[in-house]
Amino acid sequence: MLSPFPMPSTALLAPAIRRFQQNPILTPGQVRPSRPDMVVECLLNPGAFRYQGRVGLLMRVAERPVQEQGWVSTPLLDPTAEGGARILRIRRDDPELSILNEDARGFDYMGRSYLTTLSHLRLAWSDDGIHFTSDDAPTLVGEGLHEAFGIEDCRVEWMDDRYWLTYTAVSEFGVACGLITTRDWKSFLRHGLILPPHNKDVGLFPEKVGGRHWILHRPSGVGPGGNFIWVAESLDMLHWGGHACIATTRPGMWDSERIGAGAAPIKTERGWLAIYHGADLQGRYCLGALLLDLEDPRRVLARSVEPLMEPTEDYERNGFFGNVVFTNGHVLDGDRLILYYGAADSVICGAELSINEILATL
Amino acid sequence: MLSPFPMPSTALLAPAIRRFQQNPILTPGQVRPSRPDMVVECLLNPGAFRYQGRVGLLMRVAERPVQEQGWVSTPLLDPTAEGGARILRIRRDDPELSILNEDARGFDYMGRSYLTTLSHLRLAWSDDGIHFTSDDAPTLVGEGLHEAFGIEDCRVEWMDDRYWLTYTAVSEFGVACGLITTRDWKSFLRHGLILPPHNKDVGLFPEKVGGRHWILHRPSGVGPGGNFIWVAESLDMLHWGGHACIATTRPGMWDSERIGAGAAPIKTERGWLAIYHGADLQGRYCLGALLLDLEDPRRVLARSVEPLMEPTEDYERNGFFGNVVFTNGHVLDGDRLILYYGAADSVICGAELSINEILATL
Repeated sequence: MLSPFPMPSTALLAPAIRRFQQNPILTPGQVRPSRPDMVVECLLNPGAFRYQGRVGLLMRVAERPVQEQGWVSTPLLDPTAEGGARILRIRRDDPELSILNEDARGFDYMGRSYLTTLSHLRLAWSDDGIHFTSDDAPTLVGEGLHEAFGIEDCRVEWMDDRYWLTYTAVSEFGVACGLITTRDWKSFLRHGLILPPHNKDVGLFPEKVGGRHWILHRPSGVGPGGNFIWVAESLDMLHWGGHACIATTRPGMWDSERIGAGAAPIKTERGWLAIYHGADLQGRYCLGALLLDLEDPRRVLARSVEPLMEPTEDYERNGFFGNVVFTNGHVLDGDRLILYYGAADSVICGAELSINEILATL
Repeated sequence: MLSPFPMPSTALLAPAIRRFQQNPILTPGQVRPSRPDMVVECLLNPGAFRYQGRVGLLMRVAERPVQEQGWVSTPLLDPTAEGGARILRIRRDDPELSILNEDARGFDYMGRSYLTTLSHLRLAWSDDGIHFTSDDAPTLVGEGLHEAFGIEDCRVEWMDDRYWLTYTAVSEFGVACGLITTRDWKSFLRHGLILPPHNKDVGLFPEKVGGRHWILHRPSGVGPGGNFIWVAESLDMLHWGGHACIATTRPGMWDSERIGAGAAPIKTERGWLAIYHGADLQGRYCLGALLLDLEDPRRVLARSVEPLMEPTEDYERNGFFGNVVFTNGHVLDGDRLILYYGAADSVICGAELSINEILATL
């Protein structure tokens, strides 16, 4: 006998992930350190864009001094120091030093938190979107007190005759979100911090919705709350309000510990398609998708149950911080979503997905 | 022989603190619970203002169900429940329950953080600024998903023909800052969240500076940073940007763990005088002052070395959370600063200080 109810669809088709054969497409060895006494430790999390017929990546270059046995040393931006940076150097057995869970990304010292590396942003260019050449010098470095621990994970979006760069600004005052604009990738205009700590992962909608600009962002706090995705709106891109949480972490799932938006949401007939990263309690980072209402980005229409993409390849599983695929940059070509991503917080990779295949899972 | 250098001034005169003889001026017993099954646990942290010849306090009323032996129960706003709230009730020996350091203010359950009480805002009125009568019903209660754990610690400031209410909105999504306006204390206009989590202690400058509105605010995060005072600016009061940290905690001092602005900064000839609270690692809350540049609120001209006011009285030392003086409301009368404050997170008190005496310490 036939059930009167239709069977629930189990056909949540996974989209095909066509990783570049050339992966990783950019590694630390291909990038010149910003100073002779520094080593490029990680090359990761690029913003991506098209400019004058080429594909540009605005990479995060994470450097640190050569590490000596028995010591931890990390660079801090300091305009008063020679070369614009000074080195904080601590004995590994200093009782004031605390390296939590041997996390390679940071440590505590004298009651304050530090990063093990100092990041700047640097351009790499490609004619085919696969083979990239890095510039020899940093494109953007942290400026001022609020960026003394570096700048990271820049999203790039073209809108209203200029590129909008939203990035993470790190300092002893916290982890906040800065905004820079450029038209020619030579001169840059800094607009300060558009969101206070703790916040990162600002994905900008590529056009106004309801007469307003919109972003996705990821505040984190103490007490109630978590590492959730929020939306905000603005009239001028510099001042933000109307904050609302649109997605939380999901206990027991692949995105149980933290989630954050990738690059700009993609306009489709069914809604705004936002690629996001989700991490579990073990710090394993996967990618998923949110579908948001075209007229009201605060309305979530659908969300990935299974991850779209997981760290499966050797270069995604092993590195500075293993088991990570993290994207904050893509370029579009019709149905083709060409995703650039950081793998294992160490190298830059590419993958191609079909937007329609992603939508079919939602 | 005379020193060629002038002696450092040791004459940091402490201002006289004239506590009201009637303290505490408002206690939980003077306020009717919002529901018959609830108890007013704490009455604290009022915004203060003048209206039609009277002084108004917009108090924080913190309620919870009568506690039963062996259980922890807390109310959560829920529009679908009878009376608009439901009770979360947990056995004290539930392994998923975690009460950190026996802090009466909150607990963790199933990996999420909760408050032990649910706060709403309620008006009390006085003809002399000392003897207050509480309204019998809540004035403002949490509304919507982002205020399901209540609303707290409201600053009130008159500007441009209306009152501006900045308050803490608490929910499972985090601790954020909301804005409400009113002209008559009867009808209220809600403007949503002006700052995302984790943020509180929004003190609004009473007039534009350099063509912009300004606030002090207190974001808190994880990793680098702390519980510091930041400034932000706005063109319309709804959208905020230009975030900058202006004051950090000071290790080893009375404000070593957290600081946050009180009510609106006070315009003086020497600069904007902002009263702030500072807590140490033991959670002892005192009050101090910042002096900010009249033309540029991002510039700190001076800061209290010693606290202006410390919890010394019995009603400040003992209560729901002892050793606390916390202010987010005051009214002015020439040189007289009439400070309303929460004592021990339990009762409302008043004290009078001289603005010139405070300035003399800075």
